[in-house]
Amino acid sequence: MGTHLFKTERVTSFPGNEIVKEILILINCKVYREGVGRRADVIAQAARQVAEESGVTIAIAPTFTDIHRISRHFDIPVYAQHIDAVMPGAFTGHVTAEVVKFAGAVGTLLNHSERRMTLADIEVAVRAAKEHQLNTVVCTNNDATTAAAAVFSPTYLAVEPPELIGGKISVSEADPGIIERSLAAAKRVNPSVEVLAGAGIHSGTCVRTALDLGTRGVLLASSVVKADDPVRVLQDLVSKL
Amino acid sequence: MGTHLFKTERVTSFPGNEIVKEILILINCKVYREGVGRRADVIAQAARQVAEESGVTIAIAPTFTDIHRISRHFDIPVYAQHIDAVMPGAFTGHVTAEVVKFAGAVGTLLNHSERRMTLADIEVAVRAAKEHQLNTVVCTNNDATTAAAAVFSPTYLAVEPPELIGGKISVSEADPGIIERSLAAAKRVNPSVEVLAGAGIHSGTCVRTALDLGTRGVLLASSVVKADDPVRVLQDLVSKL
Amino acid sequence: MGTHLFKTERVTSFPGNEIVKEILILINCKVYREGVGRRADVIAQAARQVAEESGVTIAIAPTFTDIHRISRHFDIPVYAQHIDAVMPGAFTGHVTAEVVKFAGAVGTLLNHSERRMTLADIEVAVRAAKEHQLNTVVCTNNDATTAAAAVFSPTYLAVEPPELIGGKISVSEADPGIIERSLAAAKRVNPSVEVLAGAGIHSGTCVRTALDLGTRGVLLASSVVKADDPVRVLQDLVSKL
Amino acid sequence: MGTHLFKTERVTSFPGNEIVKEILILINCKVYREGVGRRADVIAQAARQVAEESGVTIAIAPTFTDIHRISRHFDIPVYAQHIDAVMPGAFTGHVTAEVVKFAGAVGTLLNHSERRMTLADIEVAVRAAKEHQLNTVVCTNNDATTAAAAVFSPTYLAVEPPELIGGKISVSEADPGIIERSLAAAKRVNPSVEVLAGAGIHSGTCVRTALDLGTRGVLLASSVVKADDPVRVLQDLVSKL
Repeated sequence: MGTHLFKTERVTSFPGNEIVKEILILINCKVYREGVGRRADVIAQAARQVAEESGVTIAIAPTFTDIHRISRHFDIPVYAQHIDAVMPGAFTGHVTAEVVKFAGAVGTLLNHSERRMTLADIEVAVRAAKEHQLNTVVCTNNDATTAAAAVFSPTYLAVEPPELIGGKISVSEADPGIIERSLAAAKRVNPSVEVLAGAGIHSGTCVRTALDLGTRGVLLASSVVKADDPVRVLQDLVSKL
Repeated sequence: MGTHLFKTERVTSFPGNEIVKEILILINCKVYREGVGRRADVIAQAARQVAEESGVTIAIAPTFTDIHRISRHFDIPVYAQHIDAVMPGAFTGHVTAEVVKFAGAVGTLLNHSERRMTLADIEVAVRAAKEHQLNTVVCTNNDATTAAAAVFSPTYLAVEPPELIGGKISVSEADPGIIERSLAAAKRVNPSVEVLAGAGIHSGTCVRTALDLGTRGVLLASSVVKADDPVRVLQDLVSKL
Repeated sequence: MGTHLFKTERVTSFPGNEIVKEILILINCKVYREGVGRRADVIAQAARQVAEESGVTIAIAPTFTDIHRISRHFDIPVYAQHIDAVMPGAFTGHVTAEVVKFAGAVGTLLNHSERRMTLADIEVAVRAAKEHQLNTVVCTNNDATTAAAAVFSPTYLAVEPPELIGGKISVSEADPGIIERSLAAAKRVNPSVEVLAGAGIHSGTCVRTALDLGTRGVLLASSVVKADDPVRVLQDLVSKL
Repeated sequence: MGTHLFKTERVTSFPGNEIVKEILILINCKVYREGVGRRADVIAQAARQVAEESGVTIAIAPTFTDIHRISRHFDIPVYAQHIDAVMPGAFTGHVTAEVVKFAGAVGTLLNHSERRMTLADIEVAVRAAKEHQLNTVVCTNNDATTAAAAVFSPTYLAVEPPELIGGKISVSEADPGIIERSLAAAKRVNPSVEVLAGAGIHSGTCVRTALDLGTRGVLLASSVVKADDPVRVLQDLVSKL
């Protein structure tokens, strides 16, 4: 992937890579009607355009069946929305680190509030992802679960109070304390872990506040995916960086 | 998809289609290392070749991330291994009828023993699949569950005694009675439903026996997917038709 | 249990029993604060009193830990809220037919919308319950799932549209058609199965309507469990029988 | 409960209690046929007898429906095998901290390998248990998951490599390293947490080794529950203390 076009680099934690800790805006397409198929292409194209304009890394997490197509056609980092805690084998309807890597993903969400995983499975999935050089974004809901997941050293922890997901009020507006407490709790357990703010992020001000609280970026969904004009929304999101 | 090359046609149950009830050999790739990525292409190519030679419909159910690529590059029917019982919306890491249809699938497995679904979800998923003109293959484990699932009028019921899955002994050898009882029970509930035999199918004799018992084909996995030479195995599987 | 006090008898389907098909009012205590511990005793006592006054069978489904105490102290039929589809063995935190039978239950709910089960597990659990002479009340959500579950010949099917559960409008008021269609669909598959109406039942009129639609009784929860005076509510519920 | 009969005391972490850190032998009855109903009484009686003889705290985790009866009839600490991460409310077939407390339990297992929980649910359940003054024994499978769960400050972490559960070889024999690593990892995250050794524990030597590795006791099941003579097995288990 031609990351030479980016002024900043995707954060990675793999040995040998020079790590440039920059911010990440990660768009979760879920299976919103406005986020799958040809519409996923529109969002990927918008992300690519605004990434080029702004130099900010904007990544997309499309549905499984769109990963291969989007990673081939658009020069942006692609994440899976989930992988299962299984190794290659007899697991019909499951998704492994191996297959999303082959499809072109550079990372995966894990434990999203819409797809919670057992403690044991999160640990296995983070490990499997690392073995395939995939970034991991482990979603959590409060300071205690953020600190617990920090033990597994994922690339990012995404703190998302479930009651704010999909809403019009961002976590950085509604409850900045949860970000600060989660960040502090996670750093106590694992000083090298990075945190994204999730839930309700919809404007440049939300993103700015999230960064000022010490996060490395944001995980968002509906505000971009359901937008009439994703380019304009993304331009606003990066406008205060 | 250029089905003009096939002497027989994929069984469909959609209004307006002329229905030619012919047999189906459906290969479930699971997430076997030997069934994903480039190796899935090899199996799809083998399926295509033997389908052309024999006139038998051979379909493939690759992992989600391979559906789009295989359906674009190989002229064979592609099935998903599973869809979730959700409509388009905020369901991170889920798979809808809509997205597998867009990716090129003509049908989906449901309720495989490695991905069991609730009764309520099977009903929703079969309905969603039909709304997107997808065939449905609902997997069941005995005569009672086969009859229950027959109520939902899926395209096929695939009877797979879990203890035989992945083994060297086929259901048609080990327990032909389960096929006969399941078929009879399903037909009592829904005379128009068709049955596939699953679990342990590995030879032309297994397939022949399955058909003689009244099924419309077979669902199989490891015997083809893990074969050194999938073409040869597939040629054997269709050899007694 | 001294069922001689009842003018009517609990419906049973066990060989050798004379079956007197009478109505059943089944109170699901869930884990409402108002339905556990000493408060479950209050409800059981109310059920006993109104059952004696009216001759109607009123049964209670308390939380697992209350089954033994209530079945010992109150002369009313006690149901479990769920059993798992496992046989005796290494299943920590699970509940078998055997243990609820030992605790004094005469039956069990299965597949409640708050505890959905896979198709395969419903079949196993109904079978296990029958082997222990437990009645089974399989909850379903529409005509298709009701017909499917009818294949397993449970003692009752309880039709509960999820959107009405816990509400103030009963299924018999809001959507009598769903009861009629479900009853008809179930009887087509299995003429001997009986249906209860669930969801929102709160008055004698609801119960009367449910019976007039052809059901054998009702499954209810909050209207009794959260009542200030459960005796009065139960008296109203049986007032039009 | 007359804990005055014990030379040692159950470990508790509640404010105001004097904490005497002594060892715990916790017997998980699962739903083994040999561990439910009248047979659970036999095991409870054996535990009581050997506890009195030895002064060691021996606790029992019977199936939900046996908790009330055993806690009333036997003077030993009783644990639930699981509680769900739900508050009192509309949760049919669920088990809350409140109801197991009312039934007489002093604590609960959580996240057993046969009943894994999501990360979010473990956090909620530990919190709910503490609010009801219940001890918590969170089961984990390796050093990473043990450290993660340590963040929640349960009373105990029980390290159980799944492949050894139910076997004849104890974790302290087969893989003492996993106990040492898990203990060290957990203490780094939370110095006050205590660890139990689980999986395959069957003799006084296993228990002695487990304690020598720094644990505070053992979680065991089949070796006691399936024993012809539970008293003799328990006497052996405490023989090297």
